[in-house]
Amino acid sequence: MKQYSKLIRNLFVIVIISSLLVSCLKEVKERSEIKNADYGIVIHGGAGYMVPEWYSEEQIKAYEEKLNEALKTGQSILKNGGTSLDAVEATIKILEDSPLFNAGKGAVFTSNGKNELDAAIMNGADLNCGAVAGVTTTKNPISLARLVMEKSKHVFMAREGAEKFGRANGIETVDPEYFYTDKAWHSLQKAKEKELENEKLGTVGCAALDKHGNLAAGTSTGGMTNKRFGRIGDVPVIGAGTYANNATCAISCTGHGEFFIRNVVAHDISALMEYKGLTFDEASEKVINDKLVKVKGDGGMIGIDRNGNVAMKFNTKGMFRGFILEDGKPVIKIFKD
Amino acid sequence: MKQYSKLIRNLFVIVIISSLLVSCLKEVKERSEIKNADYGIVIHGGAGYMVPEWYSEEQIKAYEEKLNEALKTGQSILKNGGTSLDAVEATIKILEDSPLFNAGKGAVFTSNGKNELDAAIMNGADLNCGAVAGVTTTKNPISLARLVMEKSKHVFMAREGAEKFGRANGIETVDPEYFYTDKAWHSLQKAKEKELENEKLGTVGCAALDKHGNLAAGTSTGGMTNKRFGRIGDVPVIGAGTYANNATCAISCTGHGEFFIRNVVAHDISALMEYKGLTFDEASEKVINDKLVKVKGDGGMIGIDRNGNVAMKFNTKGMFRGFILEDGKPVIKIFKD
Repeated sequence: MKQYSKLIRNLFVIVIISSLLVSCLKEVKERSEIKNADYGIVIHGGAGYMVPEWYSEEQIKAYEEKLNEALKTGQSILKNGGTSLDAVEATIKILEDSPLFNAGKGAVFTSNGKNELDAAIMNGADLNCGAVAGVTTTKNPISLARLVMEKSKHVFMAREGAEKFGRANGIETVDPEYFYTDKAWHSLQKAKEKELENEKLGTVGCAALDKHGNLAAGTSTGGMTNKRFGRIGDVPVIGAGTYANNATCAISCTGHGEFFIRNVVAHDISALMEYKGLTFDEASEKVINDKLVKVKGDGGMIGIDRNGNVAMKFNTKGMFRGFILEDGKPVIKIFKD
Repeated sequence: MKQYSKLIRNLFVIVIISSLLVSCLKEVKERSEIKNADYGIVIHGGAGYMVPEWYSEEQIKAYEEKLNEALKTGQSILKNGGTSLDAVEATIKILEDSPLFNAGKGAVFTSNGKNELDAAIMNGADLNCGAVAGVTTTKNPISLARLVMEKSKHVFMAREGAEKFGRANGIETVDPEYFYTDKAWHSLQKAKEKELENEKLGTVGCAALDKHGNLAAGTSTGGMTNKRFGRIGDVPVIGAGTYANNATCAISCTGHGEFFIRNVVAHDISALMEYKGLTFDEASEKVINDKLVKVKGDGGMIGIDRNGNVAMKFNTKGMFRGFILEDGKPVIKIFKD
């Protein structure tokens, strides 16, 4: 009888030690290994201080329809076995071609009345990436960023040089007039009256997981209204506004770019997953609603991890956002839940 | 007797469980908490394929003397209780003012015969940072980067805009002719003959820990010889070529910039320390001599952590490098040990 009780106690001790060790080392890994979807796509159209009162029903409908169109474009590529890179580029092009967002067609004006656009794209499979800053005649900066990634030895090109490279490789260019919209022009006049540089709502971004298990992310922006001094924000800074890594997740950010650069936001979320074992949701929450909030860094992020888990976090009043997973049901939101 | 043996065994079990838990959770933290020095400074003048046979005794002496002068300048600031930011800026200015390195005075030429300089600086105390890209008339780009950090709302400015901001704030400018050196000009002619863009040796960088426990890092470069297309490398990309965080370390990188951007090298080293508990030496070794080697990303890094531990890692033949800690003995090296 005594021997049995001894044996039982020893077994008990062994079980305790093992379970402590296992939970200490593996718990988080197991949590993050839960497969949520085989493929999916998530987008944003900028975060900011928007509240329902600011928008008419018509405006809300216009935003929702455009976000839906963009999502469906990407999802259809993924559904047919296309790559996450193709889905990200095609989806962002839809948003760039719309005057609703501060990217491509709807880009805001600099203080001297120009439109200077930035974009970046990253392939999670091999960490290759491309970024462009300050382009003025490229219709779809996201496509130029992809061209830089795939057809040049470089990853980051600026201004005339970037556009020269684009033209040499057949990228679609437009007259700078193309980027004129009344909305952006009036926004500049208002900003000038107040002598402010405004981080206008509307940077766009996309992240996708394809059927092959590859992640990609991209971001495109027209920058700040009334921007001076050749300021570059976080969008073309890989690791800050855009990051993708098959080991973790794909992310696109939007917000007060300076804070996203200082905090290397997109890479920080990935590192918290890879090195500290946080889930995608926990890591995104930590960076956007803890670290950034502490330094008053306004903005948000969207992304998808390698298991198809979606995160859409923001510390502002709202964020144009949405996702579709393999089930095909789009979820689109603007304001807080 | 039996009771004692029981007690002893129970105590033994408790000790085992506790030590397992403690070692599991704290071991690495303890390792990294060992204080090495109260203050110190570390520099580089570029990594690359240099071997002793390439240099005359005179040349080696000239490099060593300049590295020594730079180190002593920074160390004297730190010794007198100055800040790591002041030490980093003053040290890099010495290297920028020398024609020996590819930064400031010794900057290489772009394909159209211009000198376009990039620089960045970061304050580990508050994660504030400043970066400039493509400046052509600023004598000391590292000082302009600091000005962007301290006197603007932005962290990253490019080209004419950056210089306009600098001039408005009293930064020292020079005629572009100032950056002419025979060495850089001949290097361009050679590169043109071979139709190559060369990542020339000689980007400079510095990291420092001051007596107040604050870390800072900075990097300055003339970019690539025969560079086209407005290419931006890793130097002004915070998190890639430059990063400082009082929680971990201060780092400046040098090498094939594209790989340093893709791998977010400087922030990755910091994240491996903060989130995975690696020591500074282990984290730097992992990124430079494992991750980067796997993708053939040539280059190196120097840095100092919050406990005064120095790392100087490179996967090339050599790297101009050196450090001084509080003991005041400079260590300067060029080739592999």
